[in-house]
Amino acid sequence: MKINVINPNTCLAMTDKIATSALSVANPGTEIMACSPLHGPESIECMRDEVLASAALLDVIAEGEARQVDGHIIACFGDPGCDAAKEIALAPVIGIAQAAFHFASLVSHRFSIVTTLSRTIPMAEHLLAKYGFAHQCVSIRAAEVEVLSLETISDSLFIDLKQECLKAIEEDHCEAIVLGCAGMSDIAERLQLELSIPVIDGVVAAVKLLESLYCLNLKTSKSFIYSEPPQKHFSGRYAHWSKLRE
Amino acid sequence: MKINVINPNTCLAMTDKIATSALSVANPGTEIMACSPLHGPESIECMRDEVLASAALLDVIAEGEARQVDGHIIACFGDPGCDAAKEIALAPVIGIAQAAFHFASLVSHRFSIVTTLSRTIPMAEHLLAKYGFAHQCVSIRAAEVEVLSLETISDSLFIDLKQECLKAIEEDHCEAIVLGCAGMSDIAERLQLELSIPVIDGVVAAVKLLESLYCLNLKTSKSFIYSEPPQKHFSGRYAHWSKLRE
Amino acid sequence: MKINVINPNTCLAMTDKIATSALSVANPGTEIMACSPLHGPESIECMRDEVLASAALLDVIAEGEARQVDGHIIACFGDPGCDAAKEIALAPVIGIAQAAFHFASLVSHRFSIVTTLSRTIPMAEHLLAKYGFAHQCVSIRAAEVEVLSLETISDSLFIDLKQECLKAIEEDHCEAIVLGCAGMSDIAERLQLELSIPVIDGVVAAVKLLESLYCLNLKTSKSFIYSEPPQKHFSGRYAHWSKLRE
Amino acid sequence: MKINVINPNTCLAMTDKIATSALSVANPGTEIMACSPLHGPESIECMRDEVLASAALLDVIAEGEARQVDGHIIACFGDPGCDAAKEIALAPVIGIAQAAFHFASLVSHRFSIVTTLSRTIPMAEHLLAKYGFAHQCVSIRAAEVEVLSLETISDSLFIDLKQECLKAIEEDHCEAIVLGCAGMSDIAERLQLELSIPVIDGVVAAVKLLESLYCLNLKTSKSFIYSEPPQKHFSGRYAHWSKLRE
Amino acid sequence: MKINVINPNTCLAMTDKIATSALSVANPGTEIMACSPLHGPESIECMRDEVLASAALLDVIAEGEARQVDGHIIACFGDPGCDAAKEIALAPVIGIAQAAFHFASLVSHRFSIVTTLSRTIPMAEHLLAKYGFAHQCVSIRAAEVEVLSLETISDSLFIDLKQECLKAIEEDHCEAIVLGCAGMSDIAERLQLELSIPVIDGVVAAVKLLESLYCLNLKTSKSFIYSEPPQKHFSGRYAHWSKLRE
Amino acid sequence: MKINVINPNTCLAMTDKIATSALSVANPGTEIMACSPLHGPESIECMRDEVLASAALLDVIAEGEARQVDGHIIACFGDPGCDAAKEIALAPVIGIAQAAFHFASLVSHRFSIVTTLSRTIPMAEHLLAKYGFAHQCVSIRAAEVEVLSLETISDSLFIDLKQECLKAIEEDHCEAIVLGCAGMSDIAERLQLELSIPVIDGVVAAVKLLESLYCLNLKTSKSFIYSEPPQKHFSGRYAHWSKLRE
Repeated sequence: MKINVINPNTCLAMTDKIATSALSVANPGTEIMACSPLHGPESIECMRDEVLASAALLDVIAEGEARQVDGHIIACFGDPGCDAAKEIALAPVIGIAQAAFHFASLVSHRFSIVTTLSRTIPMAEHLLAKYGFAHQCVSIRAAEVEVLSLETISDSLFIDLKQECLKAIEEDHCEAIVLGCAGMSDIAERLQLELSIPVIDGVVAAVKLLESLYCLNLKTSKSFIYSEPPQKHFSGRYAHWSKLRE
Repeated sequence: MKINVINPNTCLAMTDKIATSALSVANPGTEIMACSPLHGPESIECMRDEVLASAALLDVIAEGEARQVDGHIIACFGDPGCDAAKEIALAPVIGIAQAAFHFASLVSHRFSIVTTLSRTIPMAEHLLAKYGFAHQCVSIRAAEVEVLSLETISDSLFIDLKQECLKAIEEDHCEAIVLGCAGMSDIAERLQLELSIPVIDGVVAAVKLLESLYCLNLKTSKSFIYSEPPQKHFSGRYAHWSKLRE
Repeated sequence: MKINVINPNTCLAMTDKIATSALSVANPGTEIMACSPLHGPESIECMRDEVLASAALLDVIAEGEARQVDGHIIACFGDPGCDAAKEIALAPVIGIAQAAFHFASLVSHRFSIVTTLSRTIPMAEHLLAKYGFAHQCVSIRAAEVEVLSLETISDSLFIDLKQECLKAIEEDHCEAIVLGCAGMSDIAERLQLELSIPVIDGVVAAVKLLESLYCLNLKTSKSFIYSEPPQKHFSGRYAHWSKLRE
Repeated sequence: MKINVINPNTCLAMTDKIATSALSVANPGTEIMACSPLHGPESIECMRDEVLASAALLDVIAEGEARQVDGHIIACFGDPGCDAAKEIALAPVIGIAQAAFHFASLVSHRFSIVTTLSRTIPMAEHLLAKYGFAHQCVSIRAAEVEVLSLETISDSLFIDLKQECLKAIEEDHCEAIVLGCAGMSDIAERLQLELSIPVIDGVVAAVKLLESLYCLNLKTSKSFIYSEPPQKHFSGRYAHWSKLRE
Repeated sequence: MKINVINPNTCLAMTDKIATSALSVANPGTEIMACSPLHGPESIECMRDEVLASAALLDVIAEGEARQVDGHIIACFGDPGCDAAKEIALAPVIGIAQAAFHFASLVSHRFSIVTTLSRTIPMAEHLLAKYGFAHQCVSIRAAEVEVLSLETISDSLFIDLKQECLKAIEEDHCEAIVLGCAGMSDIAERLQLELSIPVIDGVVAAVKLLESLYCLNLKTSKSFIYSEPPQKHFSGRYAHWSKLRE
Repeated sequence: MKINVINPNTCLAMTDKIATSALSVANPGTEIMACSPLHGPESIECMRDEVLASAALLDVIAEGEARQVDGHIIACFGDPGCDAAKEIALAPVIGIAQAAFHFASLVSHRFSIVTTLSRTIPMAEHLLAKYGFAHQCVSIRAAEVEVLSLETISDSLFIDLKQECLKAIEEDHCEAIVLGCAGMSDIAERLQLELSIPVIDGVVAAVKLLESLYCLNLKTSKSFIYSEPPQKHFSGRYAHWSKLRE
């Protein structure tokens, strides 16, 4: 099967990191296609970034569909554009926040999210409510690090992030940690080893869920709200959407 | 005061209709600037449309800010891009769904929404939950009409919409009707007259709320999640966002 | 238009303060009629006070209706008797708690309430749940001051109240403050200036909402639960209710 | 022990009916004092009635306290004035709606309420939410009968009420019926016999709960929100409250 | 009437303590039959214990039914096996957690639970949600004592438990305490005396509720989910369930 | 990896069916060990069955642990004993209801459950709430078939089940179907083909989730509520639990 792993920001180092993580858990028969949009922000840290990245991401979804991929991963913790992507794709689409929450709920009674900036906390709260995991999340903690600083995680940054996880364990009594940014994908294993509780990265989680859906022959239901959108006229920089599937 | 009334789709007839409604209730000292984006879909009827319209709408918000408006109205019932707009604007931003819900909750115990297509119902449900009015909404009914057909509302279309309102009153026991599309703005008054219960159009509702905020000297709090977003690099068709406020 | 601004307690200095606030934001064409009941407590600080004030307040609503006002404001933060008032009035009725919550939700993601005595906190919690704003309120803080002490707010009292607001900002991360008593109406502006986040007084908020409803031609729906109550016999000190509208 | 069974309306036939029900289940050592206020409506069927009855009822609570009763029952299904009564009484106070819900939740998984007029349904919904039983109530059905018509329940009225119960069983799949008016107290037994599922009357339920509290030496906690209200000045027809407990 | 008071663990000293408590509040005509299962754990402190105790407890329910008791009490704070017991019993069944919550909600606005080990807290949270009392419980505090240590409560253990109650009062502002283990039944009275707020033991609470149901002629509704289970084949150590009621 | 697929009832034909389903989707390196308890009911259709099956199932979990399996599946839609199993197992444990819900939420906005007997509906409702998927489930429909009749699904039974699915699609507007019994595992594929929307069987879903957890190196967090239970004395038929891990 072919998986379209999309880094919705334009930071290519992040795309590489995500690809490496995805590959590390993919089944032998799984082909990982990592990509990112040509347009949009270099990192996603607020609603403005999310709105612009979502619009750009839809192009990458459409390209993946044209290449007949078997699944799409939206590798940003806000799951930007996920519902719109499900409309335009026949292959299933998974955001890494949702993927991470699913596994966190399987291995713990209560989990915490450790994320980048506190201004993204409301986005995470929104996703917890949307997906139904709010009652299982005891805290969302921001280490107050910029997303781009995660490109290469220094030792001192690792310690800061680990420190925030320890607070979640000691003060909030969480039993598992969900990493709140695709850019933390490469430290999940080390953190789990040092913290002795499950640490969940959404990128690898999403790969396994897509492989599972593929094996189970399950795709997004196209019977109602994710059915193909009506054709219509688009203007200006979105004019190419007018012709799609014509 | 100056109000930036934004029709987030590119259908200019709709923009005119919205402008007319807004003007009809504006205070003497209120200047209505009606506009719509250069880019994006001609109507907003699914998540794909909403995502693309949201990105395009942010430009119109930025232009309004450059012209120092005192408030922005997002005149599409999905309130697309509203949170991102609040980040980039100093002037307050109001979506017409939120505006309509506020007034519906003031004049009724339970209200219904009458909207266009049933595939937009989940978007309305999401907004009811987000704003806290879910417990006051007894039903969301779709008349199954396309948004563009509302450009000029024929007599038979009016009857269809009224019929849906009557079902909401008789079957769902609502006490007020919220109109689920800016394109219905021009029939609110006639519907209220014929139905004998309050019928609420979000466009005029939003104008009065912005005028109220202006008079009360209240603006979006910029102290936390709606604070100005960090400057960063944007690529391609969003490159102009890199320089904003530089 | 004529607005019946009701101070539900019998403290006339409070009535004057409320009238001054209401007038300060009223449109040129708006006539403010400030009044208070002949009967009942001099301040409302517990459920007993609220129950007795609610009964007395209905007389003042009826008098306003007789004078054909275009709207009623219940200027006590517990919104006492608001639902009953909606039954007996044709003109719309707004409580200042509800009014304040509406504007707080428009200008912030999360707000705090700063109120008088902690024993009134459950009343505020009840209203937040009733109106649907509980998820947007991060804290209710009582400065532990008696309502009557707000008649004239001394400098030291102002500092105490401001201190409580600062705690709400620093410890609870609120983005706006809702003032939990009509008696704080006159310090809203100064507090907003000193705190640099929106500070919302329900008295002025309610005036603008009633003016908006008037302009939009919206009144309380009389089609179901706020319809005119059945005529019946009342005994003793409520005997005058037997004849109303006969 | 002495129980103050209060019919909050002024219909004495109803007071007698309630007294009879209460006596029928009281323990040998329990003295039932049935009474009703001198002031207020002859029946409680809307918020106006509830507000006026609540104020009048507080006098009857105070009289009961003066006579050192060991508990108060508010025998109207809206539990009017219950929280205020808890403030001014040392003896426990129970409303019949709450009492009925408690027993319904003990003998069924899901119950229905059969009440008088549909305009009282929102009051019942409010109490279900307040007390925490909303998830156990599958329907509230109004037989559309006036409260006073329950003074003497005719055969045809009994059949109407039973019919509504049968609909609740067949259409809503309830497992028990809660009677939504003290005036139905005398038909509970017959209904239970004919319906073959538990039928719960709040009047008798409240008697047993008060006797239980008495035996268990439990009274309303006076440590916080039900603590004795502050002394203050009351005007006019409530002037007697100024002196209470002085 | 005859009440089957079941201690679901096999610790006989606990059974005696529970019997003593139950007897202390029983009406003259009430016969208390205290018993415990032959099989299962000596204390219930985790889900494993609860699952095994629940299975064993059903035998004791069946024996009580054979002896035609008029009610069953499940005297362990997790209310183990309560729903299954309701299926197989004609007489009503009450768990002590549910019983305690009912009385706590009658005498306080907000209560706290003081329990044994923190690993049982999620069980208590589950019951609060199931029964509808979650919004009235401000905290669940574990004194970190093993259940068996409550067999005989030493002075120092009493002080530890009281200390936890004091924290609930001072830090969480509770107005009443619910004791989270049947083994604390004998200190409820002393705690209430020393804490000056209501302290509720579920064992005595359940006795009074069963006596009340008996007097009110109310039993578990057998019309739907608690109807008699279908007969079927059971293997091995549960083979005796195959023949029941044949 | 080795997966312990447990049929919690004693019907061996059902165990075989479950094993066949599990094998059909297992990765090449996955060993499926299908088993069922020696003790307990031949089918699970009420709370009594669930309680007894749960106790018996814990033995099978312990045996699987002794054989060092890498995961346990509880293949009954009520997920009986799942939390207790997580306490006593080091390997992850998944119930098929939870597994099915996860995949249903990934491929649809709203799903329905089609199950056996309506008396099991409250169990399914409980699991939806517990796992956080209640808001995504639009209906639970019972075909009113006994579990054992699913041993071999006749053509007429298939038609009945399909009919119930069609009603869920047409009347409840679901976008996917979750099969509410492990005994329906063998018709999932055919149903999906004929209904043209996703049909989810929890048995195969659980296999893929366990394989995913294994690959991701994630196990049940043993840091708090699922930590190893305290050793203690068990009597009678549960005496063997006294010695476990001694």
